[in-house]
This record gives sequence, structure tokens and C-alpha cells, in this order.
Amino acid sequence: SFDRMWDDLAPIGRHPATGGYRRFAWTAEDATLREWFVGEAARRGLDTVEDRAGNLWAWRGDPDAAVAAGHPGLVLGSHLDSVPDGGAFDGPLGVVSAFAALDQLDAKGFQSRRPLGIACFGDEEGARFGVACAGSRLLTGAMTSARGLALADGNGTSMAEAMRAAGREPGHVGRDDETLRRIGTFVELHVEQGRALGDPDHPADGPVAVGSSIWPHGRWRFDLAGRADHAGTTRLDDRDDPMLLAAEVIQQARAAARRFGCVATVGKLRVQPNGVNAIPSLVQAWLDARGEDEHAVTQAVAHVENAVGRPATQESWTDTTLFDEDLVRLLAGTLATERPVPVLPTGAGHDAGILAAAGVPTAMLYVRNPTGISHSPEEYAEPADCHAGVDALVRVVEKLAGGPA
Amino acid sequence: SFDRMWDDLAPIGRHPATGGYRRFAWTAEDATLREWFVGEAARRGLDTVEDRAGNLWAWRGDPDAAVAAGHPGLVLGSHLDSVPDGGAFDGPLGVVSAFAALDQLDAKGFQSRRPLGIACFGDEEGARFGVACAGSRLLTGAMTSARGLALADGNGTSMAEAMRAAGREPGHVGRDDETLRRIGTFVELHVEQGRALGDPDHPADGPVAVGSSIWPHGRWRFDLAGRADHAGTTRLDDRDDPMLLAAEVIQQARAAARRFGCVATVGKLRVQPNGVNAIPSLVQAWLDARGEDEHAVTQAVAHVENAVGRPATQESWTDTTLFDEDLVRLLAGTLATERPVPVLPTGAGHDAGILAAAGVPTAMLYVRNPTGISHSPEEYAEPADCHAGVDALVRVVEKLAGGPA
Repeated sequence: SFDRMWDDLAPIGRHPATGGYRRFAWTAEDATLREWFVGEAARRGLDTVEDRAGNLWAWRGDPDAAVAAGHPGLVLGSHLDSVPDGGAFDGPLGVVSAFAALDQLDAKGFQSRRPLGIACFGDEEGARFGVACAGSRLLTGAMTSARGLALADGNGTSMAEAMRAAGREPGHVGRDDETLRRIGTFVELHVEQGRALGDPDHPADGPVAVGSSIWPHGRWRFDLAGRADHAGTTRLDDRDDPMLLAAEVIQQARAAARRFGCVATVGKLRVQPNGVNAIPSLVQAWLDARGEDEHAVTQAVAHVENAVGRPATQESWTDTTLFDEDLVRLLAGTLATERPVPVLPTGAGHDAGILAAAGVPTAMLYVRNPTGISHSPEEYAEPADCHAGVDALVRVVEKLAGGPA
Repeated sequence: SFDRMWDDLAPIGRHPATGGYRRFAWTAEDATLREWFVGEAARRGLDTVEDRAGNLWAWRGDPDAAVAAGHPGLVLGSHLDSVPDGGAFDGPLGVVSAFAALDQLDAKGFQSRRPLGIACFGDEEGARFGVACAGSRLLTGAMTSARGLALADGNGTSMAEAMRAAGREPGHVGRDDETLRRIGTFVELHVEQGRALGDPDHPADGPVAVGSSIWPHGRWRFDLAGRADHAGTTRLDDRDDPMLLAAEVIQQARAAARRFGCVATVGKLRVQPNGVNAIPSLVQAWLDARGEDEHAVTQAVAHVENAVGRPATQESWTDTTLFDEDLVRLLAGTLATERPVPVLPTGAGHDAGILAAAGVPTAMLYVRNPTGISHSPEEYAEPADCHAGVDALVRVVEKLAGGPA
């Protein structure tokens, strides 16, 4: 069933020229992916409900009765949207693996003592409206509906307008306690986005790891103002060219990351007016910085600001997120049958991190990424490793929902 | 009449937020500007014809009879389109001044011995399709119709499609000898785009200069490929981040310009996928380089290529353009009544340069720009200097088209 689901998803939102995925929130591609999810759920007798934030929850069993009885459900899943020209695995692997695990459990005749849910979070990448994990942030209230609905895409369309165009009523958006109560435990499987498991120095690590935490991370924006001028007639000494400051931001970000032992990236620029023969009036440069140590990350950003001589605007900041310690230990123990299972921090944000920060018992599983490449059409995981991920989810469900209630 | 025309043009294509002009070829704004031009011509009894390249020619007198009689017409004018968020003067000053000069001549009862024309060139800035002076290049054959019509804007619309949408038949586009024959002499008045006249060190220069030549200039594109990766999870040593190369191009361009005594500018960048949390797969950086000495310009570009270790693609190159020597001398002599008139080379390309290169006797007049700022909403010329420009055109017409035929 894994391969069939994978093939069904393969063409949706795939750009013919780049081979990358463009699956953005509240677009036609997003609607097709949601239909696919509802169909796979129905095929297995699961009922899908959409929460107040636009995330999908497919349930087997009555999640509210279980809440009343004091043993709320176990939820697997991830997201289906992508970054611009993203890969096939980031997100979909967790959703497809969840359905495939359910199939294996059904084939074994497994009886769950808790309702089982599969989640499909909306707008995890924030590719369209700029805020990552928008679906889980709205669900938990980490982002207010007022802020979320006012976010605009590159065409000036607000999230509220995009939701309305997709047939949703934005007035309903907001923290959804009814949905949150149903999640007794959340386990998100995700393709690894570095080479922690694929590193040739650690071939014995195996195909699956357990996530321990998410690095603190933030986004900053440098608004570098200069003076628009003609590129052919303005003497060098008369220029106030902000492109040179942008170059400085790019280079100082790398230098600061090395110095303070974190990562820092300028991946997005906006140049005005962006004409070949025009000295720009404004260059905006976005800085993404993360690391194991919060202090190191903020020091690195301050270093860039000082070196360039311009302040940056903090667009977002997330502290270190620790996954549920007991759950992490239990997953690592359950999966360590043949060899110890690596327990890893990650530099990537996930809906699991948002839920963990909101107090939901949460953990993650990572599937090996041999090149470490992610957010790219070249993102890849070996089929055998993907199946090992499904097997791991099966064992996790057996451990967390098997036996007497 | 100058002020009324200026006021009529002021709102067309002006962006309410930036205050800059967005007047791009074959758009609704372009159509409005063309209607304005035809209206001003008709108001003065001039007949407007559009040539095979989409440029407008308003004639008083029969230009073809004059060709047959061996004394083809005298043409003034410039263009009405703009760079993105450009100023009000670059282009329109030359067109408005031409009409205003005609009004002064009419008020004096001037009788021309040659047909008088006012030109409005299309797509001078190349803001939409990327090639500057597209109208005059197509007119003279400096750009073939096949190449021009295939140029595409940022939305993938070709020039052929844009022309068709504007009601033109692209099949007619091409070198237009009938139009070229009619231009006995072309004099383009333009706002100065540096501080050559406004320099506080030369306060005695006066408000108007005569152009002697256009610097050699070219455009190059660096296609800097890297590897798309996740900004949070990819170790610094595993990255192949082309943004760092783009920073190098920006800085080396400035260094090379200083070293070789020319100007070099990176004013346009394109980042893929341009996501905050994505190491780019590709950054394209455009380099504009110009200078008095051709060799210095090509050396500067080679220096950038060597320093960055990547080759650039030459998108365009134009040799030094000399305006007609006799005409330059005659204009300088005519205008030097109270003091010598500066005769200046420029780093900016103009339709006058394309016509000169095609063998049309051509020269330019520049009106003082006190700050030197151009291609910007802040572009400015003093009203008194604009009126001095009109007076200069009046004297030029009297000199070149007065007296017995």
C-alpha cells in the first residue's frame, strides 16, 4: 500500500521543469492533497474532521468518548504541503507511513485500546504566507487568528481571503481545545533533514532515529535602504548602494555561524526595483539562524548586525523545544531491539514541536536521509529505510495502544 | 504649455506607495501615454504615424516630400516609458520640451524650411522585456524582429503577445527604412543622469550641455548554481550555498570598477527558490558595466569572473557611440552665447545612441540634474533649468531649420 499511495501523490503539484514540488496552502494543489487524504482515510474506515485551524484529523474510534474515559487517542501523521521546489518526502513520508502502519496493524488483527488518529497539518512550511507550522500554531494558539489571517502572500492575498476562496470560513479560525484534548500522544515520523543517520562515519546507526528536541531558531529581516540611482551615470563615490550591504549580511552570517557554532543562512532576498541598470533603493535580506545553544544563536545574529552596522527585525523566535522525556525514552527502548537507536536533536521546525510546546505529549521518529539533502527535488530516502520507518510506527502503536485499556 | 503637459502626465503610471513611475511597454499605462502623445500632436496640427517597431512620429510638413527634395526632416523627442519606480524626467522631459519648443517657435511665427518631427520611442528602458532601447533597436535592425518578439517578461508573456494584446500586429515588426529616411537630423533632449552639470565644483557650467558620446556598456549574467538544502539541518561544511558566490560577485564588481576606472553594478538578483529556510539552488546576478574605455570595462568584468571563479554570460554589449561631430560642434556653438557649453560623454544608453550607430546624424542635449539622481522617484530638475532646455531646443531648431531651404 505504501508504494501505491506514493505513486498517487507523486504528480500532485510537481513542477515539470524543476521536478520539485509546489504545494502551497489553500491552493488547488492543496485541495487535491486534502482530497487524497480524506479518500485514504475513508478507504480504511476512518472519519476525517477538519479542525478550526484547517488541519485534518482522520480517526478510528470515538476520540471524544476516549477523552471522557481518560485515555485520549494516539495520533500519527505529518503534513503534505511543501517549500517552493521541495522534495517528495518532507511531510508526505509521515502521512503515508502512518496509513501504511495502520494497514500492517490491521493485517495483524491488532486491536487498539485507544482511538487511533492520523493528522494532516495544513501549511507546515509557511511557503505561501511566511509563517512555518501555521496550522499547528493556529490550533494551539501559538499564533493568534488575527495575526494568521492577516498574513499575505506574494500577491497580496491574505490567508483569510485564501481560506475563503478555498471554501473555508475564516471567522472560525482559532485555538481549538476540542481537537487538542483528543490528542493523548502525537508521534510524527519525518525524513531526516541532515546526515546524522547517513553519515558514513556512523554506518551502524540504522535507518530510524528518535527525536529528542528541536533547536532554538529564529528569523530576522534586514531592511537595507540605499538610494536608487542610474547604474551608468552615478560615480562610485556618489553611490549609496544597499546591494553591498546585502553582500556583507550574507558573508557575515556565515562567519558568525562558524564563530558561534550554529547555522545561519540568507536564503531569501528582495531587491527594489531589481533592474539591471538601477542601483537598488532597498534590499531586504532574511536571516535564518539556529543552533543547539540559544545564546550562541542570538550572539551570532548580534554579530551580523554589528558587522553590517544595521539592525535586524526579528520576525520569529522559538526556544528550544524538548519532546516528552518519558515518551522519547519509551520509543527509544521499544525500537532498540537489535541495536541502540540514536536519539537526536534537530535544527528543523515541525508541527510536533508546536504541539510539544503546547503541552501535548509528543515525540518524533526520523528516517535516514543518505545525502542529508532536503527542501530540494533531490531529497531522498531509500525504500528499505522508508519501510523500516513504517515498521517502527507499527511497533510504537503496539507499545502505546496495545494490550488492555 | 510645459507646465500643463507636465501636470497631465504626472499621474500616469505613478505608484501610490513608492511615488515612482511604472510605465512599461505595451501595458495600459503605455497606451495612455501614447494617447496623450497623439493628442498633443493633434492639438498642434501634427500627424502621428507609428513605425514598424511601435515608435510614434508626429510630423508637421510632409516628411516624404522632403526626402525626395533632399532635405529630410529635423526630429526632436525622446521616450515616455520608465524603469520600475523611475522618475518623472527620464524620457518625458525630452518629449514635453519638444512640444513646448514648437509652441515657442509658433508664437514667434517661425517658418521651418524642413519638416519638423517629434518622436516618442517605445520601450526605451527595457523594463519589461529586458532589452533597453528596444523600439530604436527594432527600428534600425540593431535587434532583429525575431529576437525582439521572442523576448519574454517576468510573467512569461512574449513581446509578440504583448503587442498583439495592445492591438498591434507583430508580423509587421522589423527594420523600417521608410521611417529612417525621414530623419535628416535627430536631437534628443534628456535630463542629465549624473552630476556633471550640478557639481558644486563647476557652478558656472549652466543648465544645458551637449552630448558628445555614449560610453561603451554591457550586461552580463552570472548563473550561480548551488545545492538546495534545508537551512536548519545542513552542516556548514556540507553546504553548497550560491548566495555566498552572489555576495562575492557584488563585492568584486565594486572592487573591479575602482581598479579599472569604470562603473559596475549588481542591481538585479534572482534567487531560487527564495525561501527563508532554504539554501538556494540557484542565484542569478546581473552585472552592468560601463566606462569611458572599452578595454577597462571588459577587464573589470573578467576580473569579477576570475575572482568568483565562475564565467558570466554576456547579454548585451554596445561599443562607444560617437554623436555626429559636425552636429555636436554646431549645437555647442549655437548654445554658447553667454558662456561655453559643456560637451559631455555619458554612461547612459539612449535611443539617440542607437540612431547614431545606425548612421543617422544625431546629437543630444542634457538638462542639469542637481543631485545626479536618476531612475528613482527622487529624480529632479529645476523648473528654470527645464525652461532653459526648451529655449535651447528653440535655438537648435532655428539654427537647423531656419532660413532659406
